[in-house]
Amino acid sequence: MTLVNVQCRLAARPVGLPKPSDWDYIEEDAPEPGENQFRVQVEYVSVDPAMRGWMNAGRSYVPAVEIGEVMRAGAIGRVTDSRHPDYQVGEQVFGTFGVQRYALSDGRGVTRVDTTLAPAPAHLGVLGISGLTAYFGLLDVGRPEPGQTVLVSGAAGSVGTVAGQIAKIKGCRAIGIAGGAEKCRWLVEELGFDAAIDYKGDDVRARLREHAPDGVDVFFDNVGGAALEEALRRLARGARIVLCGAVSQYNATEAPKGPSNYMQLLVARASMTGFVIFDYAKRYPEGIAQLAKWLDSGELKSYEDLVEGQITDFPETLLRLFRGENLGKLVLAV
Amino acid sequence: MTLVNVQCRLAARPVGLPKPSDWDYIEEDAPEPGENQFRVQVEYVSVDPAMRGWMNAGRSYVPAVEIGEVMRAGAIGRVTDSRHPDYQVGEQVFGTFGVQRYALSDGRGVTRVDTTLAPAPAHLGVLGISGLTAYFGLLDVGRPEPGQTVLVSGAAGSVGTVAGQIAKIKGCRAIGIAGGAEKCRWLVEELGFDAAIDYKGDDVRARLREHAPDGVDVFFDNVGGAALEEALRRLARGARIVLCGAVSQYNATEAPKGPSNYMQLLVARASMTGFVIFDYAKRYPEGIAQLAKWLDSGELKSYEDLVEGQITDFPETLLRLFRGENLGKLVLAV
Repeated sequence: MTLVNVQCRLAARPVGLPKPSDWDYIEEDAPEPGENQFRVQVEYVSVDPAMRGWMNAGRSYVPAVEIGEVMRAGAIGRVTDSRHPDYQVGEQVFGTFGVQRYALSDGRGVTRVDTTLAPAPAHLGVLGISGLTAYFGLLDVGRPEPGQTVLVSGAAGSVGTVAGQIAKIKGCRAIGIAGGAEKCRWLVEELGFDAAIDYKGDDVRARLREHAPDGVDVFFDNVGGAALEEALRRLARGARIVLCGAVSQYNATEAPKGPSNYMQLLVARASMTGFVIFDYAKRYPEGIAQLAKWLDSGELKSYEDLVEGQITDFPETLLRLFRGENLGKLVLAV
Repeated sequence: MTLVNVQCRLAARPVGLPKPSDWDYIEEDAPEPGENQFRVQVEYVSVDPAMRGWMNAGRSYVPAVEIGEVMRAGAIGRVTDSRHPDYQVGEQVFGTFGVQRYALSDGRGVTRVDTTLAPAPAHLGVLGISGLTAYFGLLDVGRPEPGQTVLVSGAAGSVGTVAGQIAKIKGCRAIGIAGGAEKCRWLVEELGFDAAIDYKGDDVRARLREHAPDGVDVFFDNVGGAALEEALRRLARGARIVLCGAVSQYNATEAPKGPSNYMQLLVARASMTGFVIFDYAKRYPEGIAQLAKWLDSGELKSYEDLVEGQITDFPETLLRLFRGENLGKLVLAV
């Protein structure tokens, strides 16, 4: 019996939110592993805001996905066939396997998934790139000190949920910005944020004044736009802004808006620093070890928003992110 | 004979460029020093872009000048009368004496002017706040390494001329952005910049590509606006943007424009950091000593643009800055 591969490929560069015609679905024979290769059957696809950026042409921190290419995605799958000495059939692995049912790999960039630490989907979230992004972004770039105020935008997302929890573990005051009263309640009651601000319903400026009376020492920004401007207005002296993402701008059809009050960086003697998690690849083991330890002790909780579906459900699942429908890490289980 | 003081006071908060009705001129008896005070006759008034910011209401790094107050200014003058044990008549001193003929002081924030190092006006420029701003901003915040490319906007101004020269002393490639072909020629031929880009006449993007083929490692920004956006487009990996000023925005009547491509900080793993020279007050002696040494060895040159006039000529002199008419440090000699 021939295995059939299903792929979700980029058909066109989206303008604004990706629409159905921006995607192609291909069915073809599953690829056979060559020497030193193995085949993975994808089980869990990581669905991330950054994917929207990969779909655009132009200079960025990774090459753009080309038209006609399988959509790039981190994923977890099981080795179904192997001609690679280090990978055995049945092993569960993580890699950039793309939005497809079967992927070939030579092992580069592939890590084993240790389900004694946590179930597989958590290895895309708190023990995966999302968790590592929160860990190194907050601690290495943001450098919060105990007692300081850490503000996180996109706080209910995959990175934000971890960043806020790490802030608490480190003895900081954690404030989240998220969309909707329900998410905000969840952040405070379930994740232990000290406060959460609903950018859709609250007066963000007034709530920030209330919850960060002495200013914001670290702003972990996943969102950009208005959230960034409001944070700039309330920086404490010597504050650090960690630029992790700008999800409010990813689907913009006009030129993105820059923070008009960026000179508040001068007033506050503050810095704004961009970082890309891939630069920390050598330190991933350190990050994973610490995150796993916190997970084990119960100090850190893992939140995945699992969508059950097919490879062809990827485009619709991606849109859930931009509608703000997910709580924690969005994962497509295929 | 009673001494007559002349003061230039803020009459109204300017909208856009300051206009004559934003100023008042007051003549009154010169103040008499009380105990532990001395009187200074102002000789040289420092004329700086930052002054425009001080005239606005709102949160900034120093309190705003209030309506009816003497305009704040750094100045050099001579002690004409003293009831202070540490200051003798005839001594030449620097302080924030304001735009007026006679000022009282209790010695706080006052330093002596050592004319064996350089003539008095240089103590407002290369050996004053301008030079110190370039010194600590470039070296402490920008941290350029030999062989790296340093881009300076407002390069022909009081801070820019020093920042570019220090970059050269430190073995960097120095590129200036300035307004006008004549200024650019001056920067290269007279000050030793490796290249200068005329933002009024050149294609800044193309010239930057040509002169910084490997990207900009340090951008010392005095200007903001388009210069900042162009620099963001050409950042080298790990670049540092030093936010020193935003003179292009100081007279804006609309909300200032933020850098729409600020997420290039992420792409380049770069940082943008604001600083205020007053925070370095304890290290001024170190900075002055080094700047004086370079001045003495001829590695650093001092450029003052001296305008001879009266206290009442201050408003018109200030406008010269925003018309970009000065080369180096603008000083009003009264």
